[in-house]
Amino acid sequence: MRIPVAVLGATGLVGQRLVRRLANHPWFELVAVTGSDRSVGRLYGEAVRWRLPGDPPPEAARLTVLPSEPGFEAKIVFSALPSSVAGEIEAAFAASGYAVSSNARNHRMEADVPLVLPEVNPDHLQLINVQRQRRGWRGCLVTNANCVAIPLSMALKPLDDAFGVEKVFVVTMQAISGAGYPGVASLDIVDNVIPYISGEEPKVESEPLKMLGRLAGDHVEPAPIRISAQTNRVASRDGHMLCVSVALRQRARPEEAIEALRAFRGRPQELGLPSAGEPPIVVRTEDDRPQPVRDRDAGGGMAVTVGRVRECPLFDLKFVVLGHNTERGAAGAALLNGELLVAEGYVS
Amino acid sequence: MRIPVAVLGATGLVGQRLVRRLANHPWFELVAVTGSDRSVGRLYGEAVRWRLPGDPPPEAARLTVLPSEPGFEAKIVFSALPSSVAGEIEAAFAASGYAVSSNARNHRMEADVPLVLPEVNPDHLQLINVQRQRRGWRGCLVTNANCVAIPLSMALKPLDDAFGVEKVFVVTMQAISGAGYPGVASLDIVDNVIPYISGEEPKVESEPLKMLGRLAGDHVEPAPIRISAQTNRVASRDGHMLCVSVALRQRARPEEAIEALRAFRGRPQELGLPSAGEPPIVVRTEDDRPQPVRDRDAGGGMAVTVGRVRECPLFDLKFVVLGHNTERGAAGAALLNGELLVAEGYVS
Amino acid sequence: MRIPVAVLGATGLVGQRLVRRLANHPWFELVAVTGSDRSVGRLYGEAVRWRLPGDPPPEAARLTVLPSEPGFEAKIVFSALPSSVAGEIEAAFAASGYAVSSNARNHRMEADVPLVLPEVNPDHLQLINVQRQRRGWRGCLVTNANCVAIPLSMALKPLDDAFGVEKVFVVTMQAISGAGYPGVASLDIVDNVIPYISGEEPKVESEPLKMLGRLAGDHVEPAPIRISAQTNRVASRDGHMLCVSVALRQRARPEEAIEALRAFRGRPQELGLPSAGEPPIVVRTEDDRPQPVRDRDAGGGMAVTVGRVRECPLFDLKFVVLGHNTERGAAGAALLNGELLVAEGYVS
Amino acid sequence: MRIPVAVLGATGLVGQRLVRRLANHPWFELVAVTGSDRSVGRLYGEAVRWRLPGDPPPEAARLTVLPSEPGFEAKIVFSALPSSVAGEIEAAFAASGYAVSSNARNHRMEADVPLVLPEVNPDHLQLINVQRQRRGWRGCLVTNANCVAIPLSMALKPLDDAFGVEKVFVVTMQAISGAGYPGVASLDIVDNVIPYISGEEPKVESEPLKMLGRLAGDHVEPAPIRISAQTNRVASRDGHMLCVSVALRQRARPEEAIEALRAFRGRPQELGLPSAGEPPIVVRTEDDRPQPVRDRDAGGGMAVTVGRVRECPLFDLKFVVLGHNTERGAAGAALLNGELLVAEGYVS
Repeated sequence: MRIPVAVLGATGLVGQRLVRRLANHPWFELVAVTGSDRSVGRLYGEAVRWRLPGDPPPEAARLTVLPSEPGFEAKIVFSALPSSVAGEIEAAFAASGYAVSSNARNHRMEADVPLVLPEVNPDHLQLINVQRQRRGWRGCLVTNANCVAIPLSMALKPLDDAFGVEKVFVVTMQAISGAGYPGVASLDIVDNVIPYISGEEPKVESEPLKMLGRLAGDHVEPAPIRISAQTNRVASRDGHMLCVSVALRQRARPEEAIEALRAFRGRPQELGLPSAGEPPIVVRTEDDRPQPVRDRDAGGGMAVTVGRVRECPLFDLKFVVLGHNTERGAAGAALLNGELLVAEGYVS
Repeated sequence: MRIPVAVLGATGLVGQRLVRRLANHPWFELVAVTGSDRSVGRLYGEAVRWRLPGDPPPEAARLTVLPSEPGFEAKIVFSALPSSVAGEIEAAFAASGYAVSSNARNHRMEADVPLVLPEVNPDHLQLINVQRQRRGWRGCLVTNANCVAIPLSMALKPLDDAFGVEKVFVVTMQAISGAGYPGVASLDIVDNVIPYISGEEPKVESEPLKMLGRLAGDHVEPAPIRISAQTNRVASRDGHMLCVSVALRQRARPEEAIEALRAFRGRPQELGLPSAGEPPIVVRTEDDRPQPVRDRDAGGGMAVTVGRVRECPLFDLKFVVLGHNTERGAAGAALLNGELLVAEGYVS
Repeated sequence: MRIPVAVLGATGLVGQRLVRRLANHPWFELVAVTGSDRSVGRLYGEAVRWRLPGDPPPEAARLTVLPSEPGFEAKIVFSALPSSVAGEIEAAFAASGYAVSSNARNHRMEADVPLVLPEVNPDHLQLINVQRQRRGWRGCLVTNANCVAIPLSMALKPLDDAFGVEKVFVVTMQAISGAGYPGVASLDIVDNVIPYISGEEPKVESEPLKMLGRLAGDHVEPAPIRISAQTNRVASRDGHMLCVSVALRQRARPEEAIEALRAFRGRPQELGLPSAGEPPIVVRTEDDRPQPVRDRDAGGGMAVTVGRVRECPLFDLKFVVLGHNTERGAAGAALLNGELLVAEGYVS
Repeated sequence: MRIPVAVLGATGLVGQRLVRRLANHPWFELVAVTGSDRSVGRLYGEAVRWRLPGDPPPEAARLTVLPSEPGFEAKIVFSALPSSVAGEIEAAFAASGYAVSSNARNHRMEADVPLVLPEVNPDHLQLINVQRQRRGWRGCLVTNANCVAIPLSMALKPLDDAFGVEKVFVVTMQAISGAGYPGVASLDIVDNVIPYISGEEPKVESEPLKMLGRLAGDHVEPAPIRISAQTNRVASRDGHMLCVSVALRQRARPEEAIEALRAFRGRPQELGLPSAGEPPIVVRTEDDRPQPVRDRDAGGGMAVTVGRVRECPLFDLKFVVLGHNTERGAAGAALLNGELLVAEGYVS
């Protein structure tokens, strides 16, 4: 008896990855997919322009695309809606009793909405109680962070726990899939780099502070960390690379940092959540790793890979972080949040 | 009556660019090219595997490739030799009376060897007097810096003059041509990023300090700046991108920095050197510039482009810098040093 | 006293290339640019999102964008309009007395509209007389062919003249710029090939027959050649590559074909038209040429490069052809047609 | 009780793929790996520069690299040796009693060496009897074809069976992995196409004739087909694309060809070989398929995908074929040959 779930915005790139991840999921059964007016009423297998290898999973292909509004039977809805419409639709589902796990940015920074990275701040789910009380929702809404904020926060967590993180410089080299489809024009990226991603840097500078923050009753106290981000688009398909320098409250040698990163386990690993990467952080010691083509699929796309951990002449440490942006940073993140909701008893 | 010059290591990528830049040069006439044993004795047009568009300049194609040793008539030799052999060969030429302008790293950090970026530290050429006295050379040796150190130092110079630069974080996204030919394997870079370039970070962290340093009699006092670098290879052909954050001794708003960068002119512009970019620094104010394909050829490949100048949450300012790595950062740099040598009277 | 000309659809990719080519043109002075409603009334330098390196030519940047309708002073209008609107607009201009040189496909195959490749069928301009008489136009309309049909017809012309071309297999590998901007999504082309370009194969199979055809009074008798085309998109920025096999009416050895290709000169070379490539066809004998990065700019982007001419086990000869798709195949083609109109006395 | 097998040349790209495919193979157990002098005596996990995602399989990583000479216990050796040394080494293994399944080109066209594509010509294995008799070998040697010849022959087989194939034009767009590592220089392929692959066209024009030929006692009578090939390198990582036109002995409409391709099953499917693709040929009917990123992994990388089947104005049909070059075209091909050897009783 698997739990019935739905994907909102199932025809987009992240929606497609959610649909693929839900095929043969041990806990969840995909029973509904929603889409825009163009798709509603058609079979998913016909309405979707499938951008992933091969074809849509047959059981998903047979579903009829529904409008993105409450009314169908499902316990959890995974939202891959574009931010232009996600705000109100997600609230309507949460109000109607669904547990909503959203990848959209709309509600992330609201005080009573948990912005959860299961390995980092699973306790923030408790905000759901505040949320239900304050908003009168029968369901609930949990969000995952931006595709850079996630691997960054994952890598910072063990260092923050062990040594205290104070300041962070991060420069990213982000894959084209991060912009969706059609997204980045090929003329903008073949033989080129774009040193700008609209709206990205503010998210990278703020979302980790909420995730690494301390739950204080009805809100989260942001972590006392300052982040400076520069974000760039490069010609890789999947996998965001982050060059990071961190100032710590307590000095640490590279080997100590590596030890902390390697030893790290989070709630998903304790609970054995189906989509958890084991280990959540892979540390590589070769000179030239991580790399998108070689490391983005670590842990089924759910592990974050850290490499080149070394001393920084200005701060304490510098290193490179890689996360699969549309899996660990989007579809897989929403799915793992859904699994955590179940395991922690928020889905009845 | 043009000055006879030669290119050492003329068959490599940087050598080819030097040969191309010297075709129709108003001051210089290319009279000799040297190469490895494989090439010596053959016509340059036949020995070279020309990697640039079209064909070698006809007047160069007709030259016979000579061994890389003194003996031919030329006043200036531009060295594009690989570092495995450049050290001794360049010294031999300088000893024999040639003015050597080298792109190799071997002698860059020696106390009596000027590491010159003509817009930044033309006065360091005075070390040549020390050099001649100390080494007994009839000629002289001047070097240009690494292909990242050059655009970085160019962008820092006006800021250092106006506000004092104290600390610098720099993360690079470097073009494949920086590794020469065959250089980067395509399997390492298509759909990928390599977060490592052998030997690069130490150069980026040290060479700017010498160029921005103060000439103190027989040596250069390094600039009191600390730099932390992370260097990456991406899938662009030419043009190194730098994401920079700087801490200044005296606060400056972005507009003030832009004003300083725009107003900057150096000795090459004063002297009207043939290969000088005018202006030497192009400042762009679009959100998404500079970009390799659109900006690397600014100023005939000799201007450095700066964009996205904005406040940094941790330091004072952050911005993006682009320089054409094999022109401004290599062939054109060596050539401009040669022009400066002539204009300043070091070539007789 | 230069001839006043205009560019219709000047903000698109081909329009931008026309504007750039017209800067400092010896015969033409760009006096007007037109655009869509979004741009009309603004300065061209502000309305255009310039996709080429650097910035728009200053003299063009200062022009105010006009609507695409007759009324301004100009003798020739170069049309880079999209085919969705080109048909009627170009007819209106021709009716009003302008000489229209169009890159759009709309009128190409009409019986009284010359489809001209100046090196191949300059005599087809005589259809203008038929056109004026039949349509009552005071001006005229000449078109250039598709960006694959042009280099293909150029390469076939000398072979057809010397040996008679009977059948042609052509498989293309086309650059992303051929689809305009934003055009090809980066997710469709990084690490990928798309074996399909909408509407392309019918043009490649028909347009060369009109250009290589014989003027027969009031129409063109198509050349008795049969062409089979397969067209593909690959991850190069500019430069369409064609793998061609030809069956000839009279056998020819590769050396004879090379001789014919090398000896070929057309009317633009005879007339010394400013934009003509000299020679119009570059033949390369290296194993691995032509290549987009090395050969697309031959002859200022106006030469077609042919290589690997060899025997074909099924037909007579096979070889590879490269043409710069947005120059020789679009902007430069329209411009050269304009120059030919002037030289042949069709512009008064 | 799995059959002990070895990989010769296990540190190269194809060798690595063989090692990965053999991890957890239901029939085979990898007991030995060989390499060059540089690697011999080291653990495979340390000697190999692993180019595939993640890390070498742990059970392979623990093996000590042996020299490429007989002496170890194994029934089958899969050869991924470079052609510079494969000839003699493979013969030595076959002479010593091993069943050798080779990916190298050295012995492919020898009269008594089966060149086998299991779906196409499994009966050619009978040449092993001739081979043993003639050469006095206790073991045997079977080879697989070139990475283009394989998908081409696979696609031609059902058409040849049903309609008779007479002539074939094929133009390829081949992935960079086909050249091994380091292989294609990135400067040769970013923003570029190389219209030449050394030695490739003769193989593509000859090997299919042997595979599609008829076993005639002690040799194979080549199929009466004529092939003309043009081969190109493009910037995809894996997956060779083929644009094909075929002349048939008996006319066929596209739908008939599609029907024949779809209905096709070979001996591996009958036998249920572990590495067989099911179906062996995937036919896609979208306009723009197959594509490397979407279709190369069909059937676990072992299916060949055919699309755009349509009429050809010159021959009968044209279509596009895609095969994963390093799996279906190399490592997987050798492995499937090994499985066929076992299933057909050639390994005792």
